[in-house]
Amino acid sequence: MLALEDVRAAARLLDGVAHRTPVMTSRTLDERAGGRVHLKCESFQRGGAFKFRGAFNFLSSLSPEERARGVCAISSGNHAQAVALSARELGVRAAILMPEDAPAAKLAAVEGYGAEITTYDRYSKPQVEAGREFAEERQMTFVPAYDDPRIAAGAGTATLELLEDAGALDLLLAPIGGGGLMSGAATVIKALYPGARVIGVEAEASAVTKRSLEAGERIQIPVPRHLADGQMLTQPGEWTFEVMRELVDEVVLVADDEILAAMAFLFDRLKLVTEPSGAIATAALLAGHVDPAGARVGVLVSGGNVGLERFLDLMRG
Amino acid sequence: MLALEDVRAAARLLDGVAHRTPVMTSRTLDERAGGRVHLKCESFQRGGAFKFRGAFNFLSSLSPEERARGVCAISSGNHAQAVALSARELGVRAAILMPEDAPAAKLAAVEGYGAEITTYDRYSKPQVEAGREFAEERQMTFVPAYDDPRIAAGAGTATLELLEDAGALDLLLAPIGGGGLMSGAATVIKALYPGARVIGVEAEASAVTKRSLEAGERIQIPVPRHLADGQMLTQPGEWTFEVMRELVDEVVLVADDEILAAMAFLFDRLKLVTEPSGAIATAALLAGHVDPAGARVGVLVSGGNVGLERFLDLMRG
Repeated sequence: MLALEDVRAAARLLDGVAHRTPVMTSRTLDERAGGRVHLKCESFQRGGAFKFRGAFNFLSSLSPEERARGVCAISSGNHAQAVALSARELGVRAAILMPEDAPAAKLAAVEGYGAEITTYDRYSKPQVEAGREFAEERQMTFVPAYDDPRIAAGAGTATLELLEDAGALDLLLAPIGGGGLMSGAATVIKALYPGARVIGVEAEASAVTKRSLEAGERIQIPVPRHLADGQMLTQPGEWTFEVMRELVDEVVLVADDEILAAMAFLFDRLKLVTEPSGAIATAALLAGHVDPAGARVGVLVSGGNVGLERFLDLMRG
Repeated sequence: MLALEDVRAAARLLDGVAHRTPVMTSRTLDERAGGRVHLKCESFQRGGAFKFRGAFNFLSSLSPEERARGVCAISSGNHAQAVALSARELGVRAAILMPEDAPAAKLAAVEGYGAEITTYDRYSKPQVEAGREFAEERQMTFVPAYDDPRIAAGAGTATLELLEDAGALDLLLAPIGGGGLMSGAATVIKALYPGARVIGVEAEASAVTKRSLEAGERIQIPVPRHLADGQMLTQPGEWTFEVMRELVDEVVLVADDEILAAMAFLFDRLKLVTEPSGAIATAALLAGHVDPAGARVGVLVSGGNVGLERFLDLMRG
C-alpha cells in the first residue's frame, strides 16, 4: 500500500517544480450539483495534466545508472508528455511509444519536449504488452503510467493540495484509468478524513474497474472505444487494484454525451478547458450519477489536453 | 488622482467576496513573447471579468438612501454582470441598459443574477448619453462603468494581487476601454515600482485613447466596430484620461486577427478561455507589438465572457 508520508515526500520534491494548480468554485455548479464543489484544476499542470506529478516523482527516484540508460514509456498522451517533460527537466533521454491515433496536440507536445516518438496500433495489442516489448528492445528504464507506488504518490499530491486549499471534504470524485490518480487520491483523503466517501468515475463503454471491483479480481476487456482517451485501459493495474479495492467506495459510469455536456458547461460557466477524461468526474455530478446531498465535494479535473481543432469538432458534434 | 491606499482599502473590502484569481505562467508563452510573462486571469473572477471588483467597491460606498433607490448601469456586458452580481450580494435592486447586440451569454448571465434588462441600439446613441437618460428616467443611483475613482480602486486590486504573487515587474500590459482598469493598474504599479513601464492595449479600429493621449485631450470617435466588445468606447473617461495621461507610457494597437490568434493560443497552450478584450493584451505580446527584451511582464487577462457558441463561431471564422 501507499502511506500518506510517501505522498508528503513527493510533495516536497515537487515543490517549485510542479505548478500549484488552482482550486475553482462556482455557485452555478454548486446549484446544479447540489453540493459545495471544489474543482482541483490539473488542466493547468505542467504538461496539461496531473501526470507530471507522478512521472517526475518516479524519475527522481531512479539511480544514476537507470537514468543513464534513458527512460521510455507507453501512453495515449498525457503520461507521454509528463515523462518527456520530466526527462527534459532532469537531463535524461526519453523515448515514447504512442498510439497512432493519439490526438495530434498530444503527439506535437511530446515532440516539443524533445522526446523521440514511435507509434503503434492500440487496437491490435494490449498497452502493457506493447510497452514491455518496447522497453526490452530499447534497453531503457521503463516508466509505468500508473501501476507503481511512486507514480501514485506523485499523483496524490494533487489531492493533498486540494485538501489544503479547500479544507475538509465529505466526498471526493476522481477519474479512474489505470488507477494511479485514484490510488494516490484515495490514500490521501482516507488518511486525513477517514469518513470521506471516495467515488471513481469511468466511461460507460469501459467500466473495467467497476466490474473488476464487483468481481473481486481484475477482469480484462477489449480496448474500449469512447471519448475519454486518457481512460482506455483494458485492465486495472495490479498494484493500483489492491489499493482501490481497499479504499474506493463506489465507481460510477458516464456516457460520452454526458462528458461532452460537462466539457461545454465547464467552458461556458467556469471558463475551463478540459479534455474528456478531465471533465468526466464533473460529468458524473452534472448528470446526476452522484448526489452530494449538500456535502463538501472535491473533484479532480485531471487534464486539459484537448487541441483547439479537436475541441471544435467535439463541440460541433 | 487615485492613491495606492484607496486600492488597498478596496482590497480589504473585496477580501473573501471577490475571487483571488490565479496568476498563470507558461514557458511556451515566455519563449514566444521574449520575456517572463505572468497572466493575471480575471477570466476566473466572479461575473467572468475584473469588473466585479470595481462595481462591488462602488456599491459598498453608497449611502443607505442611495442603495434604497436601487442602482442602474449601462454596459455591453461585463459591467452589467458585475453590477447585477454586486447588487444581489448587497441586497440592492438593479436595472441594466444593454446594447441589443450584446453577446447572448452576457444578456443571459445578467438576467440570471436577477437584474432587470432594457436594451438599446448602441450605434445610434453614445453610451454615456444613453446611460444618463436611463438613470434620470429610472431615478436610480447610476453606477459608472469606469469613470470614477471607486471603480478604478476596485479594478486596481487585480494588479495589487498580481504583484503580490509575481513579485516585481518591469512591464505591465493592460487593455484600455474606458480606462477604469488601466487607471487602477497604473496607479498600483507606479506606486510600488516607479520604474516599471505601463503599456495600454487598444483595438486598431478604435485607437481612441492612443489618439487622445497624442492630442493631449479627449477626442471623440464614432462607435468603433471590432471584435473586442468590451472596448467599444467613443471617448476615454474624463477622470480616467487624466490618470492615464500621467501614468501610461505607451498605447499599442492590435488587429482583430491578432486577437483571434491570441485567443486560440491561450486555449491551446494555457487552457484559458478568453473573450476578445481578455486576450488583447496577450495579443500585443504574441503579435510582436511589444518586445519585453527579457523583462518580467505582467498581463491583465481582463475577462472570459465568451459563450461556447460565439467562441466556436470566432474560431471557425
